[in-house]
Amino acid sequence: MQSKKDPKKLVLALAGGVGGAKLAHGLSLVKDPCDLVIVVNTGDDFTHLGFHISPDLDSVIYKFAGINDPIRGWGIENETWNFMDALSRIGGETWFNIGDRDLATHVERTQRLAEGQTLSEVTQELCRSYKISQNIVPMSDHRIGTIVDTEEGDFFFQDYFVKLSCKPVFTGVHFKGMEHAAPALGFTDSLSNPALAAVIICPSNPFISIEPILSLPGIKNTLEKLRVPVVAVSPIIGNKSIKGPAAKMLAEIGLPVSPLGIVKFYEKKIDGIVIDQFDAHLEQDIVKEGIEVLVTKTLMSSFNDEKLLAENTLNLANKIRKKG
Amino acid sequence: MQSKKDPKKLVLALAGGVGGAKLAHGLSLVKDPCDLVIVVNTGDDFTHLGFHISPDLDSVIYKFAGINDPIRGWGIENETWNFMDALSRIGGETWFNIGDRDLATHVERTQRLAEGQTLSEVTQELCRSYKISQNIVPMSDHRIGTIVDTEEGDFFFQDYFVKLSCKPVFTGVHFKGMEHAAPALGFTDSLSNPALAAVIICPSNPFISIEPILSLPGIKNTLEKLRVPVVAVSPIIGNKSIKGPAAKMLAEIGLPVSPLGIVKFYEKKIDGIVIDQFDAHLEQDIVKEGIEVLVTKTLMSSFNDEKLLAENTLNLANKIRKKG
Repeated sequence: MQSKKDPKKLVLALAGGVGGAKLAHGLSLVKDPCDLVIVVNTGDDFTHLGFHISPDLDSVIYKFAGINDPIRGWGIENETWNFMDALSRIGGETWFNIGDRDLATHVERTQRLAEGQTLSEVTQELCRSYKISQNIVPMSDHRIGTIVDTEEGDFFFQDYFVKLSCKPVFTGVHFKGMEHAAPALGFTDSLSNPALAAVIICPSNPFISIEPILSLPGIKNTLEKLRVPVVAVSPIIGNKSIKGPAAKMLAEIGLPVSPLGIVKFYEKKIDGIVIDQFDAHLEQDIVKEGIEVLVTKTLMSSFNDEKLLAENTLNLANKIRKKG
Repeated sequence: MQSKKDPKKLVLALAGGVGGAKLAHGLSLVKDPCDLVIVVNTGDDFTHLGFHISPDLDSVIYKFAGINDPIRGWGIENETWNFMDALSRIGGETWFNIGDRDLATHVERTQRLAEGQTLSEVTQELCRSYKISQNIVPMSDHRIGTIVDTEEGDFFFQDYFVKLSCKPVFTGVHFKGMEHAAPALGFTDSLSNPALAAVIICPSNPFISIEPILSLPGIKNTLEKLRVPVVAVSPIIGNKSIKGPAAKMLAEIGLPVSPLGIVKFYEKKIDGIVIDQFDAHLEQDIVKEGIEVLVTKTLMSSFNDEKLLAENTLNLANKIRKKG
């Protein structure tokens, strides 16, 4: 851990949904709220039933509010589904599941955006109402749409993910609206903060959760110029994604389905990676790529797992930083 | 009842919320679906949380779908409130209660209106999905807002009704948007249908449920010219409203708080009125006003009550029609 006298104490975490939420939460257990900024992917945001839905922001907020459903992996625990049942009865669109409690978030967010608040402001107010003291920031206040390129054509993320169950063969991603978008102020502020000690890429899907964040105008350049370690935590253990289609996507674009594939995808964008004990045999191959490695338990099944992984990840970042 | 050979068999019912829904349902138990048109007040419609909410249409639709909550008097039976609970937690507006199932109607209606459907079309599709074969028509496809005039100023209906619990002293009503509104096609079509046998004014609040319908451009004139009996059912029994603020409103504008007050309010717009046995002593006073009277049980606590009141009301209309 960093010394208390270290002026470099700000940690910037880049996160997608559930895996990102877990490590970000782990970081919150070892960092003061004012020394942690969590930037969340909004490329999955979409309009459905008239609502602005931000699936990754919700996963992170619900996790920090302590109301996330750990079994289902999304939405709110002890959820009920009477809205969906009634909607189904009157012929409404039911391909995207929304719980009765979860719906309140979508309604309130949509209302506030319609009243002219930015997504950052809405997120801040949602956090305040859940008494979340950490700084959770959408990657952008602009509307960006992640488009999944497949052998069967291009699909908006939710169509690919929910309607098509990720079945079409993945060939890449691009982002609608990215050229006119800007990173949110809370994101750029943390990047230009002299106290910035590390950028942590959470174990989220690199293509659809992290790449949108890194693709925001100026971000890759800024990260390259920053003399701050960028450390990823592998979302792949063995040859499997902890959750979601990351393993399938790696395979389909011809990258190794292992933490090595993650390293190859992030290429020069990361300085270090945290991989699971199960993948310890890959350590030397990754080091050959010029990337520092820390081997530890990466599956997070408890707050303690989250905390330990956060500590280990920060330790690797600190070690890289001290090396210069 | 009318003879089967009578070509005049179309009945047009004007209805507000719960009381109107009950008598309209009673009419549906004695009339073929194609011989009944139910025109519903939309002056209470308002936008809340981004939704177009049509309280009276919903009361009628839920009643005909057999899913209305008879105890609460509005909304859907076996309702849950998890959306509202969650909304309250994140600081949303909670002065207007929306159940989880009820919400589906508002979401679907709002979506369809945003896609360009008229309120008549949306209502028709909602009825179809609930397998309602009766013709339920909003009074207008235009947006009209009932404004309640009080000694404390003018209030939108829902503000007066829900937020202020009808407390300010009532002085009258007016209707925002009425001058640019037109009656819905289903309404004007039934008025110009040569088969029209009777117009039934359901036992709804005369000021805030029926007056908006009658105030639509051309309606009062058309009703006057039509040689078709207009029969009201009194929403007042004794000196009390069966539900809502009708009695309070009659008192505050200086009309008798009794079926006689209803007669005086409707003035020359009705030919007959059905009053409760409890008010039998008023029969002669009402007849003096030139209005035909039928005395019967008007409180509807069962489908059978609804059916009997419908039959009695149609009998009075028929009697007036035969007199010419």
